[in-house]
Amino acid sequence: MKVDGIPYRTIWPAADDPGVVEIIDQRHLPHRFVIERLASADAVATAIRDMHVRGAGLIGATAGWGMYLAAREAADLPALRALGDRLKATRPTAVNLAWAVDRQLAALATVADPQERIEAARRLAMTIADEDAECCRRIGQHGLGIIREIAARKPGQPVNILTHCNAGWLAFVDHGSATGPIYAAFEAGLPVHVWVDETRPRNQGARLTAWELGQHGVPHTIIADNTGGHLMQHGLVDMAIVGADRVTYTGFVANKIGTYLKALAAADNGVPFYVALPSSTFDWVMRDGVREIPIEQRGNEEVKYMDGVTAGGAIAEVLVTPPGSPAANYAFDVTPPRLVTGLITERGVIAPVGEDTILAAFPEKRA
Amino acid sequence: MKVDGIPYRTIWPAADDPGVVEIIDQRHLPHRFVIERLASADAVATAIRDMHVRGAGLIGATAGWGMYLAAREAADLPALRALGDRLKATRPTAVNLAWAVDRQLAALATVADPQERIEAARRLAMTIADEDAECCRRIGQHGLGIIREIAARKPGQPVNILTHCNAGWLAFVDHGSATGPIYAAFEAGLPVHVWVDETRPRNQGARLTAWELGQHGVPHTIIADNTGGHLMQHGLVDMAIVGADRVTYTGFVANKIGTYLKALAAADNGVPFYVALPSSTFDWVMRDGVREIPIEQRGNEEVKYMDGVTAGGAIAEVLVTPPGSPAANYAFDVTPPRLVTGLITERGVIAPVGEDTILAAFPEKRA
Repeated sequence: MKVDGIPYRTIWPAADDPGVVEIIDQRHLPHRFVIERLASADAVATAIRDMHVRGAGLIGATAGWGMYLAAREAADLPALRALGDRLKATRPTAVNLAWAVDRQLAALATVADPQERIEAARRLAMTIADEDAECCRRIGQHGLGIIREIAARKPGQPVNILTHCNAGWLAFVDHGSATGPIYAAFEAGLPVHVWVDETRPRNQGARLTAWELGQHGVPHTIIADNTGGHLMQHGLVDMAIVGADRVTYTGFVANKIGTYLKALAAADNGVPFYVALPSSTFDWVMRDGVREIPIEQRGNEEVKYMDGVTAGGAIAEVLVTPPGSPAANYAFDVTPPRLVTGLITERGVIAPVGEDTILAAFPEKRA
Repeated sequence: MKVDGIPYRTIWPAADDPGVVEIIDQRHLPHRFVIERLASADAVATAIRDMHVRGAGLIGATAGWGMYLAAREAADLPALRALGDRLKATRPTAVNLAWAVDRQLAALATVADPQERIEAARRLAMTIADEDAECCRRIGQHGLGIIREIAARKPGQPVNILTHCNAGWLAFVDHGSATGPIYAAFEAGLPVHVWVDETRPRNQGARLTAWELGQHGVPHTIIADNTGGHLMQHGLVDMAIVGADRVTYTGFVANKIGTYLKALAAADNGVPFYVALPSSTFDWVMRDGVREIPIEQRGNEEVKYMDGVTAGGAIAEVLVTPPGSPAANYAFDVTPPRLVTGLITERGVIAPVGEDTILAAFPEKRA
């Protein structure tokens, strides 16, 4: 999508050097737009571990490109596998990370010539990135149909869409999952306006979603996470679209903490609540998401400190609580399927949400 | 309640000077504990207008003391009325402000001697403050019964209470409304632990509620506003108690934005959801709170900027959003009576919540 009028992806091979991959260093957003050049598998590992890049799709694509740089560095297959292991260790719970590394290793294991291996790794890295972007593009097209129906019911008025956290193009290679339908509607000329949940404590909505929507020109308004219920009570939200970190095959949605509260408000006010996800996000094993999905607890400093830009233009971190007060930081919550109107996947919209409809859309996953 | 081990109210006459009233200047909390000396009606007006003090009960008490200082300054009744009008103009929508000024004026209008008028004003200012503290103390005693019942069902384990915003002693003269039952339980030796909602965008929970609970020694944990639903799903909340800005006689509760979302989560998980209020908070006219209660929209800078303490100890404000992104700032929302387990008032607990039960508790308000 566009930044300052120019189309970007979140990761791409440098035009001027076959040994370099470029990324948007997202740690600096929304205050500075920084492109980082990664010239080694080690630099890629650092970028993943220290969250220069984040989001399941983008982590997978970055790992794919990391294995291309690794193929340039490794003298043989054992050395390549060792570099792959180092990449996988950077964020051990990121499913797409291990998946992309293993996909590269499986493909490259059959290529004996080192130079051919490098070329194969480059082609596969590009394929992984392209597949991610294409998956989000399809999610966008399927979600566009829903937005188009709402727009038809209120001609001349904007379709107000609430989203939480960042499931935008910054979390993937392009388009994004939750933002896919929004960008598709915007490109199709439909009048859309996005309520962007701030998404405490890490502020991914206020930092990333607001930034990417603003750069692409999509009308949006940042709100405190507390606000969505009031807006829905007063008819100011036509639909909600969020992303997901994991969706069980029974329809439980693990997503950024606070998603469940918005789903409750949507149900209480008859507002359609959609979850957009690539099918790689499905968990085909767990049944009861509330009981079984482990919820990460992160450091309390994310609740107690905030960083931003001072009046003088410097980046500064400030303590916003009493220094001695404890804080808890649960990263995700789980929304039960009864509160979800539909799942927007690259294969289409699954509604109503439940084991039967999900397995009907993915029959190859039936036991 | 206690600050650094010493019992305080939020406002009191200075011990060393009959012309001075002292307050806690709450603008500096939680970072600095500052006592401000107010030596004129004008200083009181500034303290109310610029929110050195806030909260319905405390604003009323401050206005009462402001009229005492005004009585010392005013040569005659017309001059006193003029000072009262100036006080009332500082926060025109604060019901308790006008109420306290008018109560003083009505009482003082019958006192001809200026010196007697000053003494009568001083006695009435103290009475207004004492009544506020006593009202919260009674709310605390009625709520204590509810906490005691929960504690009896889980011997040896803490009663986990979630609260939102600050309806603490800092918003009244002492005890607080939502915190009244919590302090009463703590003083009674019951094991309580409070989940303190940060309460974006103005962070009254993280700044004020966490500070006052911490100073008094009450165990508590600050959480992002997004977190309550997850905690309730997992049995980590035994009850919620919030305050209110306005409660209709039909049971609709206007309170800090986000209250409605927590009430939805409580109902979805069978967690009792209580609203604590002095009966002066009832609106005896409005029927449909969602449709009729006006919701203040405040400046977007409260969403876009955060202030706190830097590593160097300075107070600083930082921008946390893209500079060009709009933000909306709705200050309150309305929770319908079907989501409220009970109202804790100075007359007792009203449950279930509805027109009949509220009017039964306040029969003098029947039309």
